[in-house]
Amino acid sequence: MQKPLILVTNDDGITAPGLRSLIKFMKEIGDVIVVAPDSPQSGMGHAITINNTLHANLIVVDDVDGAEQEYSCSGTPADCVKMGLQELLDRKPDLCVSGINHGSNSSINVIYSGTMSAAIEAGIEGIPAIGFSLCNFSLDANFEEAKPYIQKIVKQALANGIPKGVVLNVNIPDVENEPLKGIKICRQARANWKEKFDKRTNPMGKDYYWLTGEFELLDKGEDTDEFALANNYISVVPTQFDLTAHHTIQQLNNWNLNEH
Amino acid sequence: MQKPLILVTNDDGITAPGLRSLIKFMKEIGDVIVVAPDSPQSGMGHAITINNTLHANLIVVDDVDGAEQEYSCSGTPADCVKMGLQELLDRKPDLCVSGINHGSNSSINVIYSGTMSAAIEAGIEGIPAIGFSLCNFSLDANFEEAKPYIQKIVKQALANGIPKGVVLNVNIPDVENEPLKGIKICRQARANWKEKFDKRTNPMGKDYYWLTGEFELLDKGEDTDEFALANNYISVVPTQFDLTAHHTIQQLNNWNLNEH
Repeated sequence: MQKPLILVTNDDGITAPGLRSLIKFMKEIGDVIVVAPDSPQSGMGHAITINNTLHANLIVVDDVDGAEQEYSCSGTPADCVKMGLQELLDRKPDLCVSGINHGSNSSINVIYSGTMSAAIEAGIEGIPAIGFSLCNFSLDANFEEAKPYIQKIVKQALANGIPKGVVLNVNIPDVENEPLKGIKICRQARANWKEKFDKRTNPMGKDYYWLTGEFELLDKGEDTDEFALANNYISVVPTQFDLTAHHTIQQLNNWNLNEH
Repeated sequence: MQKPLILVTNDDGITAPGLRSLIKFMKEIGDVIVVAPDSPQSGMGHAITINNTLHANLIVVDDVDGAEQEYSCSGTPADCVKMGLQELLDRKPDLCVSGINHGSNSSINVIYSGTMSAAIEAGIEGIPAIGFSLCNFSLDANFEEAKPYIQKIVKQALANGIPKGVVLNVNIPDVENEPLKGIKICRQARANWKEKFDKRTNPMGKDYYWLTGEFELLDKGEDTDEFALANNYISVVPTQFDLTAHHTIQQLNNWNLNEH
C-alpha cells in the first residue's frame, strides 16, 4: 500500500528545531515533503506575496531521518503551501502539517499565526491540515514529550478525514516536571493583546517603536483552549475559514439598510 | 454634542484614492484621524511586525476636507490599528473604518486582506469596525457612487452598534452604466484561488516565480456575497474572529483521542 504523502511546513523557517522534529515524527507515518520558509515568518498572519518574486530551492538539511524532498522558499507560510501544492509536489498530499511552532497559537493568536495560516491555506485548497504549536519559545524546547500525541492526532486525521472547511489548531502545553494529561477538543478562548509600544530614539534622533504586549484572557470557560493548556492538556480547536457570523445576519437585516 | 471619532486606515497606503475618498465621506459624519501604512500592504493578511521597528509620522496630505490628524506608519494594517489605538489617539474611537480598498475582499479574499485585517484588529480590541472594498483595481476607480451607501452603513453602525465579536466586510460592485441596486446582508461564498505560478529565469540564470491565479467560485448560493455583487448589490458580511467550528466539536470528540 502506498504510504500517505505528508506536506510539512512552518513559519519559523526551514532550520527550526520544531520543524525538524515534526519531519521525524511524520517520517514514521508517511512520505514527507517539506516546503518551508527560508527565514523566520512569525506573525505573518495569512500574508501572501503578490508584489514580489518567489524562489524555491531544493536543499538537504539533514540526511538521517530526513524528508524525501525539502524546498526552502522565499515566501510566507501561505506562499509555501500554494507553491508546494501547485508547483513542487507531483501529487496531491494526503495531509499538510505545519509547525511545530516555537510558541503558542492558542486563542486569538490563531489570527496572527503564520503556522496556522499555512494549515488554513491547505484547508482552503481541500487538503486536510493541522497546525502544531508548543507553548515554549526557546530554541531548545523539548518536542519529544508531545510525539505520541502528535502522531495519534495525525493518524486519526488520516483515518477519519477532517470535517470539511475545518483545519485543526493543536497547542501543546509546556510541561516540565509534570506529564501531559491528554488531549481536549476545545473552542478558541476570547482574548486580546494589551499592546505596549516601547518608544525609543534612534542615533539620528528620530523616534521609533517596538511592538510588545501582554496577553489578556477574557474568557473563563472550561471548554476553551486556554483552560485545557493551563491544566496540562493538549488543546485541539477545529478552526474554520468561513468567517461569516451566521447568527448575526438577522440582526443586521433589522438595520433596514435599503429603506430611504 | 461631541462628534463621533472615526479612525480611518487601509492597506493600499496613505495616498491611495480609496482612502482619500473614505476620509472625505467620514468627515461629513465625525472627526477623523488617519493612521495608514506609508506603502502598499495588499495581501498582508493579519501580519504584524514583531521582528522589526515601527515608525509613525504626523503628515499633511491634503488640506481641503482633510482629517484632523494623519499618521503615516511603517507597519502593516494591523500594526496601524494597534499603534493608533494604543499610542497615537487621545481617546478610544467610536468606529474604525478601513479602505476603500482598490479591489474585492469578498468571499475567501477576506483571509488574505490587509483591509479586513485592520478592521478585524479593531474588532478584537473592542472597537466597532467596518472594511470597505470596491471591486475595481484601477487607481481612477469611481468611489462617489458608493458614498451614500457607505455613509448609511456607517451611520447605522454608529447608531446601533455592531454585534459583539463581529466586524463588517462591505464590498461594492464595480458598476459602470447601471445603478447600484441596494445593500444585502450576506454570507461569505465558498471559493478558492486556482494558483498559477509564472516561472521565469533571472539574468543570472536562476528560476523565480510570480504568484498569479484565478478566482474559483465553489458556491451557487443566492445568500452569498458573490451572488449579491454579481447582481449589482453591495454585500455586507458579518465577519467573526472566533474561528472555532463549533458544530464539529462533537464529531472530533468521537475520535477518542485519549483512548490507548
